[in-house]
Amino acid sequence: MRSQFTVRIVWGDCDEQGIVFYPNYFYWMDSAFQALLRDAGHSIRSLREQFGIAGVPIVEANARFLSSASHEETLSINAEIRHWGETSLRVEYSGYCGERPIFEGFEARVWLKRSNNGAARAAAIPDVFKNAFLAS
Amino acid sequence: MRSQFTVRIVWGDCDEQGIVFYPNYFYWMDSAFQALLRDAGHSIRSLREQFGIAGVPIVEANARFLSSASHEETLSINAEIRHWGETSLRVEYSGYCGERPIFEGFEARVWLKRSNNGAARAAAIPDVFKNAFLAS
Amino acid sequence: MRSQFTVRIVWGDCDEQGIVFYPNYFYWMDSAFQALLRDAGHSIRSLREQFGIAGVPIVEANARFLSSASHEETLSINAEIRHWGETSLRVEYSGYCGERPIFEGFEARVWLKRSNNGAARAAAIPDVFKNAFLAS
Amino acid sequence: MRSQFTVRIVWGDCDEQGIVFYPNYFYWMDSAFQALLRDAGHSIRSLREQFGIAGVPIVEANARFLSSASHEETLSINAEIRHWGETSLRVEYSGYCGERPIFEGFEARVWLKRSNNGAARAAAIPDVFKNAFLAS
Repeated sequence: MRSQFTVRIVWGDCDEQGIVFYPNYFYWMDSAFQALLRDAGHSIRSLREQFGIAGVPIVEANARFLSSASHEETLSINAEIRHWGETSLRVEYSGYCGERPIFEGFEARVWLKRSNNGAARAAAIPDVFKNAFLAS
Repeated sequence: MRSQFTVRIVWGDCDEQGIVFYPNYFYWMDSAFQALLRDAGHSIRSLREQFGIAGVPIVEANARFLSSASHEETLSINAEIRHWGETSLRVEYSGYCGERPIFEGFEARVWLKRSNNGAARAAAIPDVFKNAFLAS
Repeated sequence: MRSQFTVRIVWGDCDEQGIVFYPNYFYWMDSAFQALLRDAGHSIRSLREQFGIAGVPIVEANARFLSSASHEETLSINAEIRHWGETSLRVEYSGYCGERPIFEGFEARVWLKRSNNGAARAAAIPDVFKNAFLAS
Repeated sequence: MRSQFTVRIVWGDCDEQGIVFYPNYFYWMDSAFQALLRDAGHSIRSLREQFGIAGVPIVEANARFLSSASHEETLSINAEIRHWGETSLRVEYSGYCGERPIFEGFEARVWLKRSNNGAARAAAIPDVFKNAFLAS
């Protein structure tokens, strides 16, 4: 399953060069991950309630920037889970303004449970969660 | 009691005009409120633990902008609680780069308790909290 | 003329209480101002090119917060220019999640020209710009 | 030459889990790069004036997150240029709260000139700039 998240870039997203200040791309990648969850019938909130996890925090994030983008342009981000580990997953992103590639990135995230003593530790990702992303 | 919060303005705080994107001033006002709490021996976390409140959320925020500021400048913000209501407080801020006045603003905040049924409602601010700000 | 700007609130917009961190409302008010310009056939960029201004910077911003909002909710913001001064304008905003009022706010902005010596000063707003907002 | 950038984490930097929302680490890496420039006697502004470049934009950014951090903690970031290419440089970062490692990251940046026709292209980094970072 692949999701699409679209944002119109605004004035406040850009720096003195008139182009997007790069940490905002990671904010949008995080937002695209939530759109992906939503398309699979989930949200961070529902995951906590259904699976008792603390969250799906980031352990690594990366982006390569291919072209700059500016306010008033529309950025479309494709998001897809491309690798499932035992306790982790890797989401890959690609961003476009029209046909122009803007960035490619990924996030490695971990399925984080809270133990009875309150400490958080990585735990096995349930199949029922994985399966939600296999449907087209 | 009056607190001072200082921030060096960076590239990422500024817009295409090369001046601070104005919502950042509110982020810094909120940060200056926390510096004020800290100087009084408190934090949002300690308030929740000691007084059982949900938080001290904003009900109104205002700023008048007197002069623009840019990256590499140092912004000093004075913060002071200028009015205590039964269940609310008003924090006043003034920001300077050197002698140059940058902005004046205020936040109205409410002392928010969580009832037994989970709903949040404004509650009377305890004197012991108010007194922490009376000392010089 | 009244414009509407819609944003789906995401995880990264919220604080530890799980509600929107308030400076983000000002970022969205600024974004709603740009949507208003767009509906009138303009952008900050086109204003600079057509009228030779430096920008339409903020001189005052205010918001009253009526109810909290959280990630996954959709916030709709109405924006309208409610007052025209000789050199300034006042934009009023109201934000809703469904029927629930979230905030009311305003921005006072000034029409800023650059003089031949580079200094910026407030200047009279041209009628042709005002008229663009009179059409329904 | 190695620079240190220090920030006290505030309420507005954290998400509903009470930990830093990860894109903020990239904002602080960018800020630490500016501290590094400053320690070498430069700023983005001075680079534009002295060398006529458009900027030193990011072509890749990466961070691995080793431990979470929360408001009221002080984050210290070490920044160092670890690789010089013909037209690019690589800055490496490591962040700590006290002795606790928080993240490791890097930025790849390119020395961007504006051609006479306005287009931007990577250009050779002058030795005088490199040398500013060789002094202890």
